[in-house]
Amino acid sequence: MTLWYGGDYNPEQWDPVVWQEDLELMQRAGVNLVTVGVFSWSSLEPAPGEYDFGWLDQVLDLLHSGGIRVDLATPTASPPPWFSRLHPEALPVTADGVRLTHGSRDTYCACAPAYREAAQGIARALAERYHDHPALAMWHVHNEYGTTCYCSLAAERFREWLQERYGTLDRLNQAWTTAFWSQGYADWVDIEPPRKTQYLVNPTQYLDFRRFWSDELLAAYREQKAELRKLSALPITTNFVFGGWVPVNHAQWATEVDVVAIDHYPDRADIGAEEQTAFGADLARGWAGGKPWLLMEQSAGALNLGRRQHTKEPGRMARHSLSHVARGSQGALFFQWRASRGGAEMFHSAMVPHAGPDSRMFREIEALGSELPKLADVAESNVEAEVAILWDVECWWAMQGTHLPSSSLDYLEAVRSAHRHFWRAGRTVDFVAPDADLSSYRQVVAPSLYLSSDEAAANLAGYVENGGQLVVGYFSGIVDPDLRVRYPGAFTELLGVQVEEFHPLPDYGEIVLESGGRGRLWSEDVQAVSAEVVDRYVGGVLDGRPAITRRQVGAGTAFYVSTELDDATAARLFGLQPSPLETVRRQSGDTTWTFLFNHGDAEVAVPDEGELVIGQLPVQPGGYAVVRSSRGR
Amino acid sequence: MTLWYGGDYNPEQWDPVVWQEDLELMQRAGVNLVTVGVFSWSSLEPAPGEYDFGWLDQVLDLLHSGGIRVDLATPTASPPPWFSRLHPEALPVTADGVRLTHGSRDTYCACAPAYREAAQGIARALAERYHDHPALAMWHVHNEYGTTCYCSLAAERFREWLQERYGTLDRLNQAWTTAFWSQGYADWVDIEPPRKTQYLVNPTQYLDFRRFWSDELLAAYREQKAELRKLSALPITTNFVFGGWVPVNHAQWATEVDVVAIDHYPDRADIGAEEQTAFGADLARGWAGGKPWLLMEQSAGALNLGRRQHTKEPGRMARHSLSHVARGSQGALFFQWRASRGGAEMFHSAMVPHAGPDSRMFREIEALGSELPKLADVAESNVEAEVAILWDVECWWAMQGTHLPSSSLDYLEAVRSAHRHFWRAGRTVDFVAPDADLSSYRQVVAPSLYLSSDEAAANLAGYVENGGQLVVGYFSGIVDPDLRVRYPGAFTELLGVQVEEFHPLPDYGEIVLESGGRGRLWSEDVQAVSAEVVDRYVGGVLDGRPAITRRQVGAGTAFYVSTELDDATAARLFGLQPSPLETVRRQSGDTTWTFLFNHGDAEVAVPDEGELVIGQLPVQPGGYAVVRSSRGR
Amino acid sequence: MTLWYGGDYNPEQWDPVVWQEDLELMQRAGVNLVTVGVFSWSSLEPAPGEYDFGWLDQVLDLLHSGGIRVDLATPTASPPPWFSRLHPEALPVTADGVRLTHGSRDTYCACAPAYREAAQGIARALAERYHDHPALAMWHVHNEYGTTCYCSLAAERFREWLQERYGTLDRLNQAWTTAFWSQGYADWVDIEPPRKTQYLVNPTQYLDFRRFWSDELLAAYREQKAELRKLSALPITTNFVFGGWVPVNHAQWATEVDVVAIDHYPDRADIGAEEQTAFGADLARGWAGGKPWLLMEQSAGALNLGRRQHTKEPGRMARHSLSHVARGSQGALFFQWRASRGGAEMFHSAMVPHAGPDSRMFREIEALGSELPKLADVAESNVEAEVAILWDVECWWAMQGTHLPSSSLDYLEAVRSAHRHFWRAGRTVDFVAPDADLSSYRQVVAPSLYLSSDEAAANLAGYVENGGQLVVGYFSGIVDPDLRVRYPGAFTELLGVQVEEFHPLPDYGEIVLESGGRGRLWSEDVQAVSAEVVDRYVGGVLDGRPAITRRQVGAGTAFYVSTELDDATAARLFGLQPSPLETVRRQSGDTTWTFLFNHGDAEVAVPDEGELVIGQLPVQPGGYAVVRSSRGR
Repeated sequence: MTLWYGGDYNPEQWDPVVWQEDLELMQRAGVNLVTVGVFSWSSLEPAPGEYDFGWLDQVLDLLHSGGIRVDLATPTASPPPWFSRLHPEALPVTADGVRLTHGSRDTYCACAPAYREAAQGIARALAERYHDHPALAMWHVHNEYGTTCYCSLAAERFREWLQERYGTLDRLNQAWTTAFWSQGYADWVDIEPPRKTQYLVNPTQYLDFRRFWSDELLAAYREQKAELRKLSALPITTNFVFGGWVPVNHAQWATEVDVVAIDHYPDRADIGAEEQTAFGADLARGWAGGKPWLLMEQSAGALNLGRRQHTKEPGRMARHSLSHVARGSQGALFFQWRASRGGAEMFHSAMVPHAGPDSRMFREIEALGSELPKLADVAESNVEAEVAILWDVECWWAMQGTHLPSSSLDYLEAVRSAHRHFWRAGRTVDFVAPDADLSSYRQVVAPSLYLSSDEAAANLAGYVENGGQLVVGYFSGIVDPDLRVRYPGAFTELLGVQVEEFHPLPDYGEIVLESGGRGRLWSEDVQAVSAEVVDRYVGGVLDGRPAITRRQVGAGTAFYVSTELDDATAARLFGLQPSPLETVRRQSGDTTWTFLFNHGDAEVAVPDEGELVIGQLPVQPGGYAVVRSSRGR
Repeated sequence: MTLWYGGDYNPEQWDPVVWQEDLELMQRAGVNLVTVGVFSWSSLEPAPGEYDFGWLDQVLDLLHSGGIRVDLATPTASPPPWFSRLHPEALPVTADGVRLTHGSRDTYCACAPAYREAAQGIARALAERYHDHPALAMWHVHNEYGTTCYCSLAAERFREWLQERYGTLDRLNQAWTTAFWSQGYADWVDIEPPRKTQYLVNPTQYLDFRRFWSDELLAAYREQKAELRKLSALPITTNFVFGGWVPVNHAQWATEVDVVAIDHYPDRADIGAEEQTAFGADLARGWAGGKPWLLMEQSAGALNLGRRQHTKEPGRMARHSLSHVARGSQGALFFQWRASRGGAEMFHSAMVPHAGPDSRMFREIEALGSELPKLADVAESNVEAEVAILWDVECWWAMQGTHLPSSSLDYLEAVRSAHRHFWRAGRTVDFVAPDADLSSYRQVVAPSLYLSSDEAAANLAGYVENGGQLVVGYFSGIVDPDLRVRYPGAFTELLGVQVEEFHPLPDYGEIVLESGGRGRLWSEDVQAVSAEVVDRYVGGVLDGRPAITRRQVGAGTAFYVSTELDDATAARLFGLQPSPLETVRRQSGDTTWTFLFNHGDAEVAVPDEGELVIGQLPVQPGGYAVVRSSRGR
Repeated sequence: MTLWYGGDYNPEQWDPVVWQEDLELMQRAGVNLVTVGVFSWSSLEPAPGEYDFGWLDQVLDLLHSGGIRVDLATPTASPPPWFSRLHPEALPVTADGVRLTHGSRDTYCACAPAYREAAQGIARALAERYHDHPALAMWHVHNEYGTTCYCSLAAERFREWLQERYGTLDRLNQAWTTAFWSQGYADWVDIEPPRKTQYLVNPTQYLDFRRFWSDELLAAYREQKAELRKLSALPITTNFVFGGWVPVNHAQWATEVDVVAIDHYPDRADIGAEEQTAFGADLARGWAGGKPWLLMEQSAGALNLGRRQHTKEPGRMARHSLSHVARGSQGALFFQWRASRGGAEMFHSAMVPHAGPDSRMFREIEALGSELPKLADVAESNVEAEVAILWDVECWWAMQGTHLPSSSLDYLEAVRSAHRHFWRAGRTVDFVAPDADLSSYRQVVAPSLYLSSDEAAANLAGYVENGGQLVVGYFSGIVDPDLRVRYPGAFTELLGVQVEEFHPLPDYGEIVLESGGRGRLWSEDVQAVSAEVVDRYVGGVLDGRPAITRRQVGAGTAFYVSTELDDATAARLFGLQPSPLETVRRQSGDTTWTFLFNHGDAEVAVPDEGELVIGQLPVQPGGYAVVRSSRGR
């Protein structure tokens, strides 16, 4: 076993003379895997039906000759311009009816038959030509599935999907509450995607369109995977991208890829980037069901803050890479190997920057490349966590509607906030699905689990009954999977509380707690029916009402928190102490690997935990150490 | 006579078993009127031509059996999805050319013949079936007329309207000043709605399109009304909604409804909501010409602040309801009776919240329901006001153009500001049209009456001549109804001032007055030709220039105020004292009803004014009292 | 020789009776040139093919009778509504596919053959009728060329332009780096304008579309010019408008007009408006290659700040007018003569305001009109400048892409900032092209010259070699004209520095320099290879790295500045002293004209420089003086 190190390699942007230098530099840097072909469609098939595999043959042979393995991509995220000319119906349409033009990337409609056929065709051609090429280590289908389309072809497929989901229009009309605002559907053909309309969109229609699109893209992925599988037994994956607009249910897709692979681009420059790194990595491990996964893309040199790129300080790139590895990644890959000379991402950082190999950037890449092999055995170990946070993308999608009582309700932010409380204490948590087996966790946190199925509710109740400690956050258990309001809520009985009214807070408002703590964003008029009151609101219309409650249930305890707590109060609730030292433990047989990251300003001495594998002890500010110990100790 | 109490009732969202509970709860709450059918088209005509009245028969019979009267609505604000499929040309088009899709509400073009026919058809069907149903108290046409469309059908109707308004193209070309920017129209067919164009839109074209759309919607309303009137003598109305985007001239429409009905949703959470309540209610009374009107919709439990819903504090719902009644409403109705389980407004508050009848909300609903009957006689009394503020929606529309010297000029805000000055002193004002009979008022205020007809100008002059006190605000009398600049202005002679230049102020800038007062937003270089100077600007380029002037005219006085005054200076000008006690008097024969609302933090004792009808004396903070007295006292 | 004084005159908006008053007022005000016909198409050709020249005949005769000369415009910036009806394909389409509607101005697609033919037709008709009219002084083609269109006609012309520029698709594919994101073009017909697409647009495609559109509009201008030239030998021009959205390469167009004419509307109200005035005027002189040019439009009474119009304080209009004259304008013209009574710009200020001639505005117009003739001889003199700032519109366009490492990078602002440093010291600078002859300048400043050709780089190197002092700003020399990254940069060798990394700063962040200065916006990791370090960064990741460097090259010096300097540090670098007195010198033979503007709060005495021509000495706050001296002195 080994840890992968490398990145996206786009040789078609360079003269063959550069390829030779690339190989030498890859070897110098310890690169052992590159992703080739992600955006190569127009290079591989420059004109309809005219294939040019020559350059790729050369590249693969060259890489193989140098001992570099290849993650070979199907280039279907960016069809060539001629494809759009021949199949204008395969250009995507926005919710307000704009048919997009090619000239960027990702400009296709996954519901267009012409696109689907062409995608399978190019995947088949690649499989036929390269399935037995010795450089190949893995297949990489597409890139960051993400384009949503509202065209009439999408409408047709949406209707089919709905027919499958609901069977009858009556069932759909009920699920969508179409009796409201006279939306009753008399015929399947009347149903459209949630395009721009006069006023608020039906929230269940919106949610179902998100669900549908995830399934439709998954079908497109499966078709390509099937073409590759016919000829190759190598692992097949696709790289997940994360964002509110992404129409992919990653947890569900995770069962369809041979290895969960993510692209991860934190968007903060301060310590928030460290925390985001942990968050994304923990999420990926969650999707992978705790099994190893792969950081397929990260930025070598910059954090993209939207308005500007922040250059990563010395050491940050290695720290982020190792943080991913600590949390289960089987390596650290980058987009991209060599900075492009032109195009829309010419200033995207790269392992080999415009300044070339004689640069701080490349020296740091080399240094990390020389460290990673010392961690090779880590690849088969498991990350240890005592606490789980629930994650459900459908809940996120549901909360992206415009129908909520406060636009400050933000599922992602609520989950991140919970994760942050543990991260600040240096503690590792897992992300799990609401219906997952929770029995191994000491504590389970359910932030704003707005949408909950009966099964999930029963699962949580069972967890507590059997001795678990559950902390349910505000605005949880409100609706069922059809987005129909439950009253009482899904967790009312378990928590022993009744939420009678919501009291959203102003954007910068706070509510005071009896303990001296503070709540933000949200509060509720809670009645403790069979729960003890842990903390209360003070002042205002909720004066004296429960803010935090606790109920003993069977062998366990169920807490309810009806506001967004300040950090100190949350830490007290979860039993956490702030620590500048982030500690992640991985277990493999008798061996424990302890990853230590120091996010403070002073060095931190660590009790003797074993043998230092890489890094430095005491752990320096901004530094890391990996220590290996055996059970005997 | 009685006061109506109830709200929108949408039984089609619920199983019949719930209907029975609804009836019982309505009776407990003292409900006597519910609006049924507003969004029922797809329930009444689930497929083209297939009617299903059975459920509505049942509902009306049930309500009747329980003594609940019905305001029966035509469901034309939300055609069923099948209608849009059969008549895609009846889907509205935005100014930038997007043809909207159904899936919300209000998604229709009122200029589409298919829509107009269908709307008359369903109105006719309802009239035929229910005109003699004993539950019926009123007809409710449509809901919140408001959708504007820019399609080619709208263009055709717009041209016809313009031909009627102007007769000849020469007249239109002059009115629109088409000589500017080469917009001269050679043929009626060249005229389009003010769709998205390269740069600034012609302001008169924009204003005329607003006028046209109001007339077009009115025609649609009249057609439905005619269908209902054929078979029923009951009052017919439609519920007015208020907002800058609304293409309805409410003052004009008021003559076409049997009772003016408004929906009112304040959008502030602090004391501003109280003031908005008074503002909206006074406006409705103004549209009704001082006669009783009806609060058709309000929110039971929340103030919608755009980004979040603010839950109404205990007592607020009753206070708002009574404030409307004080100002002329014949009752207090809500949207809606029972909170929806799904759909875009599932979190819209309701008389029966998700928490059910055992809730603070419903208890307050019940409490108010038990008080209202004590005020039944109020319904026939008149509200007393000594002061009138002018309101002209065309002036508002005219000032929504992009052609003004400052984007901070805001007609609504200027009018609200004037209203606020009086409200803070606890005083009641009427809103009247600029050409209305003003003789009964001691004082008339004309805030930013930018657009003024010759008739209005003459009316104001006559009012002053006959002893009235007129206060004209800045940026008044600038243009005629064609939006052609008048110089001298419409009120120049009356006020005895000449405005030579505008001096818009920066957003957060102020200008100092000699009196120590302050002006905001706007200032002007005014010359006092035949007026006395009451206050002057100090400093800057306007140093020493008149800020406020007064001119004796006949038996009256005409003031001019060339800036937006601070509260204290305005109060001094209007002779007002701040008061936490809002007092509204209604007169009926010998009887005076005094409504008292305490907006302060301390209780207020009130001199003995008669018999306490409801509420508490002294008036508690946030509380109210209604006192009845006879002339004899 | 004389200085022109007057403005746009739109008599078609007024009754002939007003024309007579116009003439009298023009004479009173000293007006000697008016621009007629800019928006007259629908008045001249009210219906297709029906011409009405009668009113224009009358106007020109009347003006001639009063000694007023005419700048006769072709009205092609605003086709009549009937034109749009007959040629809907000539309405422009936005990047997101909205076909605009007429109803404003500038609503045409310059690539539509119907438009081009019609434009030539009306130009020909005007030339035929008026080429020998004695009032004519000049021809004014179109108005503020500026509309960009993304329609299919534009796409066709774009492809032709690209074929001419690149010859082969291979060359285009390389220039556009289409290997990135699979954008390789297999056929010219696949290329589209940079319309709305799924993600980032190709930056070279975007830049080429800007270049193409400038050329296409120029071709349209040339066609009209050719029609006029056939019959008339008078000067022909068009009025340049300036703005980030304007698709015109003014420096290139300048060679195609007989006199460079600009419209200039500063958008600040404080001293920034004075500085903008100087900036725009210097830019115009630069486009004109140092030769006289003409201020064709300015606002008489207001500064348009976007959200509001700020009324010009007494004296400001004259000061701005004279600042333009000082910097080379052959006069001072306004938009417009008489304020419109209606239309979208009814509140645009004018020489004759709504208040009429008995107004401060008109009195100031008259006063200036009586001063200008005293400066008549200035018209043939040259402005003196020792310093040049480089200006390249392609660099601006290139930096408008979305691909840059910081959205705070702003070419215009970088150039303005450099200009401001000199302006605050009262010093005059020229704007020149990067490939211009620089030998006459003591100092040349190149702010953010992101895009640089090899020729420009060689030109700058030669300038330094021969004794010049060059100051190159941050983010310079990064890409070639294809937007392909250069590494090393175009100026690396000349400056003796290597820029390894960019370090964009946060919006309100600063970086400290060893000298005590501060940098904003941007910083870089610079290595001084063969340059001396003038100043260094202190603290942070760039601690100790060069901020400013200097290298002796041949007889000259080349500085590099890797951040946006604070004012004091920049002044020190450029050897400047702040001064409230703006001084501009114009030389003609033996005579020097010194224009003095006092921007401070106290009067400024000036050493005896000669004879006072206009204004006052000592120079008053906000005042001006023009002094004439001969070489003998």
